[in-house]
Amino acid sequence: MNIVVAQSGGPTAAINATLAGVIKAGFEAGEIETVYGSLHGIEGLINDNLIDISTKVKNDDDIKLLAATPSSALGSCRYKMKNPNEDPSDYEKVFAVMEARNIGAFFYIGGNDSMDTVNKMSIYAKENGKSQRIIGVPKTIDDDLCVTDHTPGFGSAAKYVTTSMKEILCDAEVYDLKSVTIVEIMGRDAGWLTASSVLLRNDGSSAPHLIYLPESDISVQTLISDVKAQLEKHNSVMIALSEGVILDGQATSSSGTVDNFGHLVMSGASKTVEDIVKKEIGCKVRSIELNVMQRCGSHIASKTDIDESLMIGQAAVKAMLNGKTGKMMAFRRVSEDPYKVEIISADTADVANHVKHFPQEWITDHGSNVSDEAIKYFLPLIQGENEVIYENGLPKQIKLK
Amino acid sequence: MNIVVAQSGGPTAAINATLAGVIKAGFEAGEIETVYGSLHGIEGLINDNLIDISTKVKNDDDIKLLAATPSSALGSCRYKMKNPNEDPSDYEKVFAVMEARNIGAFFYIGGNDSMDTVNKMSIYAKENGKSQRIIGVPKTIDDDLCVTDHTPGFGSAAKYVTTSMKEILCDAEVYDLKSVTIVEIMGRDAGWLTASSVLLRNDGSSAPHLIYLPESDISVQTLISDVKAQLEKHNSVMIALSEGVILDGQATSSSGTVDNFGHLVMSGASKTVEDIVKKEIGCKVRSIELNVMQRCGSHIASKTDIDESLMIGQAAVKAMLNGKTGKMMAFRRVSEDPYKVEIISADTADVANHVKHFPQEWITDHGSNVSDEAIKYFLPLIQGENEVIYENGLPKQIKLK
Repeated sequence: MNIVVAQSGGPTAAINATLAGVIKAGFEAGEIETVYGSLHGIEGLINDNLIDISTKVKNDDDIKLLAATPSSALGSCRYKMKNPNEDPSDYEKVFAVMEARNIGAFFYIGGNDSMDTVNKMSIYAKENGKSQRIIGVPKTIDDDLCVTDHTPGFGSAAKYVTTSMKEILCDAEVYDLKSVTIVEIMGRDAGWLTASSVLLRNDGSSAPHLIYLPESDISVQTLISDVKAQLEKHNSVMIALSEGVILDGQATSSSGTVDNFGHLVMSGASKTVEDIVKKEIGCKVRSIELNVMQRCGSHIASKTDIDESLMIGQAAVKAMLNGKTGKMMAFRRVSEDPYKVEIISADTADVANHVKHFPQEWITDHGSNVSDEAIKYFLPLIQGENEVIYENGLPKQIKLK
Repeated sequence: MNIVVAQSGGPTAAINATLAGVIKAGFEAGEIETVYGSLHGIEGLINDNLIDISTKVKNDDDIKLLAATPSSALGSCRYKMKNPNEDPSDYEKVFAVMEARNIGAFFYIGGNDSMDTVNKMSIYAKENGKSQRIIGVPKTIDDDLCVTDHTPGFGSAAKYVTTSMKEILCDAEVYDLKSVTIVEIMGRDAGWLTASSVLLRNDGSSAPHLIYLPESDISVQTLISDVKAQLEKHNSVMIALSEGVILDGQATSSSGTVDNFGHLVMSGASKTVEDIVKKEIGCKVRSIELNVMQRCGSHIASKTDIDESLMIGQAAVKAMLNGKTGKMMAFRRVSEDPYKVEIISADTADVANHVKHFPQEWITDHGSNVSDEAIKYFLPLIQGENEVIYENGLPKQIKLK
């Protein structure tokens, strides 16, 4: 039997580590002959745009290099499969390609929307007597998927965000004057990544002084009085601001464009808050977007995240060989100290189209901060530094497409 | 004799390495008893706000930690000393503090404006029979100081910029559609840091496809046709854009505020170009500011830069002990292959208030690109990765103030 793997959604620093895990397990399994890569997510499978991975990944060094390469090496898509009851044509194409190429299993590495695709494909297979097994492997820097303790890619993003914020704080504190630094962090619906900035307080720092999440609905007046109160206590106030923050019941940022899934594409929350602070308080203000670097900063990837991401890719292949289909692989935290996870499989229906929000009980100070309790959850996920291979002073990467 | 050291201007990832060099040489020199740190640049000396460094830096581990800590550990200022002929009061205060504390030498680590201060102070000392020696040590991520081959701090900023751009490129190339990614890089007057992005082409990449510097005066129409031409050849076009770029003879970005030296504080060049590309071409466009992270990203500092920055700090103390005053320490590149620099001392008058522009002969394609010739100059400066000490998953830093 052959297998095929694809990547979807926004890039992360660990999504290629999961791909490397699927490839490694595929190469090692006696039952599997060829590991195909589908270019640009499900679109590659619809259009029979596949590559034989063994032409690109030839040895363990390549596996290691792939695991350290950011973003989706097979390319990504934001294509939404229609409901098969409305229009089965995409499904017919996908299964025809798999049958023609003797492909017995499809692995989809992606987020919420990809798990929806896995769910629909496995239902279609069941209802139409198809034998192919369909397995989802999670990835998202947002950490907002249900069932799993955390998502591959999140730890590396959190390590990038907290490392950068620790360095930005050094930068912000050099002048002897009152200043506010606003750091905008990704997270449209859930504030996990923004909340991870609480890790800065782990070594006694008072920063970030304010943390605003999409889950913490606050008013502009509260924001202003929060900032004023912090400026009385600290020269240099740092705010961790989620891009999806809600002020006076409204999203603060929007480019007005909408992606294929109907999600609003956002930018500019920090500029909005910068303008408010400038106008209402008048001190020095700087806003900083960590932008795409927070999801592709492989040079500062968490070793824990990369190792786990590779393992969950391997586990997906094993689960498929054991007969699983329509499942998403997930982490279960079985021990806190020492930190230990095991990999389980969950029903994609429990994951698709749901969002796991940051817990209300960890949101403090009327929505302006995060409890130090959350540190225990976040801390193991940023541990260790994944080895980077440098060539001529820059990180080396592998190209698959 | 005692000595005092201060830091000024914008932070870099290497300015504390130079401070560590001054401290190390100060501790090791038999003639020197106490090494004082002046808090917030020259302002600390004017107000007698000094610390005894030995209370904070106790051993070689602390020296190493200081060299790996970003930003100015002693704090910074943007205070401009008046001309002593107009108002000598600041000079009188500074020399009175030095005399009261038996300080025989002042080391000022900073950029262009700090070298102006060193120049004025050494002239004042000469004209008023003061024995104190005044030495400048350069720092700036802009690399725009005259006389020196390059500036401490530049190599680390270039390593951050090029590493981030290489990763951003992976991120930008995932979707199968035409897109333009604009990366805004610091450099108000000189394009060295933006031009260093040419290093991405060292391993065969076509990116960055366009590089616009403050030195490359172009028109909006040329920009549009440049981008259109690149989009015909490449799916994903990457532009390296200096914050100080000139379009149609005008600065593209300005917050309208002016610092104490009369410099315009800028932001938003990339947003301006993003809007132009969106309106005139209409493809997917993303603009990314590398913001302050490019000057404080110690976790990806160039080992060459940190080593050289430490060395130039030590050399400054040696030069002072040899009787030098009114000088700025500088690098001279004595060999290209293998790369080798020696440290010399230059007249501050040749440095202060001058800007070293990026050479016109390396600007190609009517101002839209940089010649691969420039790679030879940049490449040695980003070599090696300075060791980072991690604690609980985050880089460890030292605090002096």
